[in-house]
Amino acid sequence: MRMALSVGVMGAAGFAGVELVRLLYGHPEFDLKVITSDAEAGTQLAETYPSFYGLDVPAFTKHSDPALFDCDVVFLAVPHTAALKYAPGLLQAGVTVVDLSADYRLDDPQEYEKWYGTPHTSPELLKTRAFGLPELFGDQLARAAADHAAGKAVLVGCAGCYPTATSLAAAPAVRAGLTQGLVVVDAVSGVTGAGKKPSQRTHFCSANENLEAYGVGSHRHTPEIEQILGKPGQVLFTPHLAPLGRGLLSTVTMTLASDAKVTAESLQKLYEDFYRDSPLVTVLPGGGQPKTSSVVGTPRAQVGVVYVERVGAIVATGAIDNLCKGAAGQAVQCANIVCGYPETAGLPAIGCPV
Amino acid sequence: MRMALSVGVMGAAGFAGVELVRLLYGHPEFDLKVITSDAEAGTQLAETYPSFYGLDVPAFTKHSDPALFDCDVVFLAVPHTAALKYAPGLLQAGVTVVDLSADYRLDDPQEYEKWYGTPHTSPELLKTRAFGLPELFGDQLARAAADHAAGKAVLVGCAGCYPTATSLAAAPAVRAGLTQGLVVVDAVSGVTGAGKKPSQRTHFCSANENLEAYGVGSHRHTPEIEQILGKPGQVLFTPHLAPLGRGLLSTVTMTLASDAKVTAESLQKLYEDFYRDSPLVTVLPGGGQPKTSSVVGTPRAQVGVVYVERVGAIVATGAIDNLCKGAAGQAVQCANIVCGYPETAGLPAIGCPV
Amino acid sequence: MRMALSVGVMGAAGFAGVELVRLLYGHPEFDLKVITSDAEAGTQLAETYPSFYGLDVPAFTKHSDPALFDCDVVFLAVPHTAALKYAPGLLQAGVTVVDLSADYRLDDPQEYEKWYGTPHTSPELLKTRAFGLPELFGDQLARAAADHAAGKAVLVGCAGCYPTATSLAAAPAVRAGLTQGLVVVDAVSGVTGAGKKPSQRTHFCSANENLEAYGVGSHRHTPEIEQILGKPGQVLFTPHLAPLGRGLLSTVTMTLASDAKVTAESLQKLYEDFYRDSPLVTVLPGGGQPKTSSVVGTPRAQVGVVYVERVGAIVATGAIDNLCKGAAGQAVQCANIVCGYPETAGLPAIGCPV
Amino acid sequence: MRMALSVGVMGAAGFAGVELVRLLYGHPEFDLKVITSDAEAGTQLAETYPSFYGLDVPAFTKHSDPALFDCDVVFLAVPHTAALKYAPGLLQAGVTVVDLSADYRLDDPQEYEKWYGTPHTSPELLKTRAFGLPELFGDQLARAAADHAAGKAVLVGCAGCYPTATSLAAAPAVRAGLTQGLVVVDAVSGVTGAGKKPSQRTHFCSANENLEAYGVGSHRHTPEIEQILGKPGQVLFTPHLAPLGRGLLSTVTMTLASDAKVTAESLQKLYEDFYRDSPLVTVLPGGGQPKTSSVVGTPRAQVGVVYVERVGAIVATGAIDNLCKGAAGQAVQCANIVCGYPETAGLPAIGCPV
Repeated sequence: MRMALSVGVMGAAGFAGVELVRLLYGHPEFDLKVITSDAEAGTQLAETYPSFYGLDVPAFTKHSDPALFDCDVVFLAVPHTAALKYAPGLLQAGVTVVDLSADYRLDDPQEYEKWYGTPHTSPELLKTRAFGLPELFGDQLARAAADHAAGKAVLVGCAGCYPTATSLAAAPAVRAGLTQGLVVVDAVSGVTGAGKKPSQRTHFCSANENLEAYGVGSHRHTPEIEQILGKPGQVLFTPHLAPLGRGLLSTVTMTLASDAKVTAESLQKLYEDFYRDSPLVTVLPGGGQPKTSSVVGTPRAQVGVVYVERVGAIVATGAIDNLCKGAAGQAVQCANIVCGYPETAGLPAIGCPV
Repeated sequence: MRMALSVGVMGAAGFAGVELVRLLYGHPEFDLKVITSDAEAGTQLAETYPSFYGLDVPAFTKHSDPALFDCDVVFLAVPHTAALKYAPGLLQAGVTVVDLSADYRLDDPQEYEKWYGTPHTSPELLKTRAFGLPELFGDQLARAAADHAAGKAVLVGCAGCYPTATSLAAAPAVRAGLTQGLVVVDAVSGVTGAGKKPSQRTHFCSANENLEAYGVGSHRHTPEIEQILGKPGQVLFTPHLAPLGRGLLSTVTMTLASDAKVTAESLQKLYEDFYRDSPLVTVLPGGGQPKTSSVVGTPRAQVGVVYVERVGAIVATGAIDNLCKGAAGQAVQCANIVCGYPETAGLPAIGCPV
Repeated sequence: MRMALSVGVMGAAGFAGVELVRLLYGHPEFDLKVITSDAEAGTQLAETYPSFYGLDVPAFTKHSDPALFDCDVVFLAVPHTAALKYAPGLLQAGVTVVDLSADYRLDDPQEYEKWYGTPHTSPELLKTRAFGLPELFGDQLARAAADHAAGKAVLVGCAGCYPTATSLAAAPAVRAGLTQGLVVVDAVSGVTGAGKKPSQRTHFCSANENLEAYGVGSHRHTPEIEQILGKPGQVLFTPHLAPLGRGLLSTVTMTLASDAKVTAESLQKLYEDFYRDSPLVTVLPGGGQPKTSSVVGTPRAQVGVVYVERVGAIVATGAIDNLCKGAAGQAVQCANIVCGYPETAGLPAIGCPV
Repeated sequence: MRMALSVGVMGAAGFAGVELVRLLYGHPEFDLKVITSDAEAGTQLAETYPSFYGLDVPAFTKHSDPALFDCDVVFLAVPHTAALKYAPGLLQAGVTVVDLSADYRLDDPQEYEKWYGTPHTSPELLKTRAFGLPELFGDQLARAAADHAAGKAVLVGCAGCYPTATSLAAAPAVRAGLTQGLVVVDAVSGVTGAGKKPSQRTHFCSANENLEAYGVGSHRHTPEIEQILGKPGQVLFTPHLAPLGRGLLSTVTMTLASDAKVTAESLQKLYEDFYRDSPLVTVLPGGGQPKTSSVVGTPRAQVGVVYVERVGAIVATGAIDNLCKGAAGQAVQCANIVCGYPETAGLPAIGCPV
């Protein structure tokens, strides 16, 4: 009988962190040993998230808990810059690290400093980390899996929520060279995307019955999207907040390249072929539009694509659960791959259909 | 290797029906063979519920599908009176039936006729059916399990959503003889409780940002609650609608019996002891109040109890997911028990914690 | 031409405070001169509440703003205990005070100390203040109006949100002597009732898609309801939180007195007669149930009443906008009466019908 | 004393229709005499919209009610193609018509036939109708006002909801010649935009906790936006549905013309100057982003504009209440102008600030 791997979650009191705990609870291959939160250390998880009453999960310990170093894999659900602090030491101790923060996403440490306002303190790791977006960077994860199988600790820098939905929608067209010029990304997120910390912005009475754009022209996910799509300086990303808990929809408008020829059918086929071997991405048939409610609670993405011949453009849409495929679900998917398990191991196949 | 049992769902296009499909998909012991809907026969489930895109589930067939008779267990998620039509034939054919409708809940066919406005056409089945609320009627389900193990087809009449939350909250106090007089039940349900059929009432723009009571003094779950609690003519039940999808909270106010002596601590202990062996019911510690969001997507119930000494009364609250513990989840729990599996087999341990 | 009265609002940055500003903006008889907030002093109202962009309202000043003493009427929308601090001085300076806090609601200073945990520092004012619930205490407001007309500064202690909805629903039956024993009040409020301060409880991701009871047996509105209804020690009040912004529904269950005789018709007529001269309370015809959405944005209440003969009880329901009829709207209604204007002056007749 | 004008509303049972009734109730210059609905004829408005209980409004009559011809102004809130049926006759009878449907929006009857699938039956009226978007087509409304003052019946074809928000956001930049190429419009609407008719799409349980795009590349508001902006074949409009009742946010991305020079400051000033004399449009200071909640219940629009130098583009956003500025409020604003009243007469200055 194969032994389960020991895993830990740093930052388990946050929204992405507790979603990791949900997914790792009862995972057939991972045994959740440690969950940390400096603020909640010493308390039970159920006191913060009462869904866990009656379930057997570890109590919170501090980020300094040495038990983290006995884990095979540690997930970092800490804020950006905090991952810079923890990842190198864990890796050095032979612990594989799956980082959900922004710290190991951008290839170029200068870009990191420019957008995050602080120097990158372990730029050498950026050269070898695997980018955690399996459907688009499967090769990097395969390489990490080989290293892991060879006994090396590896680092995965998971993609952000907006970049995940956006890139899954745009990549088939972009990689096929069908587009030119500015990629316009208008995306809408539920309020879980704003994190657990209470503020006027996340107050029910502000977010409820309201729509607004934010971070126009300046959101930090912009360079990440450009990097994934290989379109530096060509992405204009406008995020919006809408009154729902989980769910993220990205609508990507791309001008058809002047030398490209597509039909609605050829475009649809291109997309379906692109994701044929990706169990967690579904291209909706016949120009159908994805609903975020269809994927909430799951690591799945649904994608729709429409060729708007009248103006010579492609509109692709991607729906995900920002906390699951956009964060914890993707992290577990990456960990599954790196550790040699089926990529969907332990992940919910379906959420609430209504 | 043990073989999975073949199961079917009649009325799978409704909200309780599709929740059954969600729970049975990937259930380790049940193999979902047939899903029926007269309205959607011939279409794929994903066309109605796009969460199912990419999953391998049967297409809808008609209620007359003979494959139902090859099933070991059939779940009836049809409207009341329709179950009267299908259950006897299935039972006669040797198929165990788990009915989610109201048709086999009330012991007394006269009561059925009085509240549902139509005569009961198989009153003899009421005498032998097991009442599907495992935490309170475990003996009936154990008897059904013995019959099933002996090769007999059995009938389970599952409790309704309001009766489930209400009775789980009230039963420990009532069965201990602590209460007297009128039991006042004010319960609030999410809009999934009103079913799938579009109407002005379920229109987003009516239900959103609104609270209202309905069916005051006349809701059909009243006699069911009275029957479960053994309090004929002593329950005043007022249901309310609130703007959420899933979730049902029942607040039960009971006057302390004149000869009863309780303290906050003794009452808490009574409740905790009552549910000590019920894996799906959690009594919140220290007078804590349950949140419906803690149980959404799961077959779990959370219960809180407070002794209000100032006025000599007990307030007990029960939170469930009306479609899961209040319908499909409880049905699968019953089926698990009847078929000899652990009662939680195949059921989600936890929903989205945020 | 009659001159408008100068008015001020202390605590205008809170939810009840800004609702006062909304109602006073453009009021035909009141001229809003001062709005105070220690936290926001020096900023424009629109920075906190962007609805006010483009409108001509005063900027925030500090609570110590001497301009308050030049007002004819000052509304106190400060937290309880803070009103104790400001009301006496304003009254002494000849300023009529309409207090929205809890400080001048309870007749008995001992009760105040018991429920609010702090001694009442101006108990003498409790003897003369008018209780601000016009439909039930019109005599007190008429007396205050006479005093005000005679040039005296008067104090109105406005009823709380839950007591307003509850008492409007219960009073006709209670005052007619139709009830006996425990009055069971289960009420549900939108999240604006929890105030502006961000917290885990008011975080969108906690309050959204959730129902819960709170303060069971211990909510501070309990003694106020008992006082209004003249039922000391006989009210069991359980408040609940539901996922909507504004709106409060109170469901009141009362046992019919053993010597009382009612029919559905007589009860309905009693209620309709009771509110015949109250322009802001509507009794729904024929046992109809009020919706909170019907009164949001207005100082109106809608009331429904049902006689449940089967168990000998009356269920009365009251719907209000907790910030309007439950706070600011009622305060302006009281100020209108005290100042000799029609009670509906300047108040919106209707909110958004959908 | 000037006499109020008699007005009527055809289609008053729909969402835009009842919003008209709300705004016309108590309007100082208009006297609402007739409200029609073939489906609800003979019933009271309050039976459909219980907000109106206790208010004095006419009962529904049939569309054939001859009293319509005695009105000075009739508002048409009927579906498209139905307005074609009623407008000519009313105009001929000397009644000024303000049409909220799509029937008199497009200048070119061919375009109408192409997008609405039916021939235009009164194309001659398209040449003289005033386009109902006062901030951008004030000249047409001024001309209509002169005609009306001269005793002629005039026709106003009011702009649609998406075109209103989109054009108010885009027009200052477009009219200043600052843009080139494709105008990308991603807009999000609340569910009231989908109308009153119940359907699976407007079912609370479908719309709640969901985001989706619809009508991608094919929505009928596309040619209207192109016409308003003078950009034929250059607008790509993607509407989305989000879980709120009222509120519409349009995000417009425009590439800066190669010969244009702007700074954040010059762009901001351009926008502020553009709307300096428009009392119902506010440009948020300093790149601030509008919230739909700030304008709900009002005929106001809030606009934000950002110059994204990095990619040479302008992102302009416009927030409106789709039923008010996007329909009924704008219609009343147009009627005010046409009839010679201040454009804001009778319109709410502010909605609920929280």
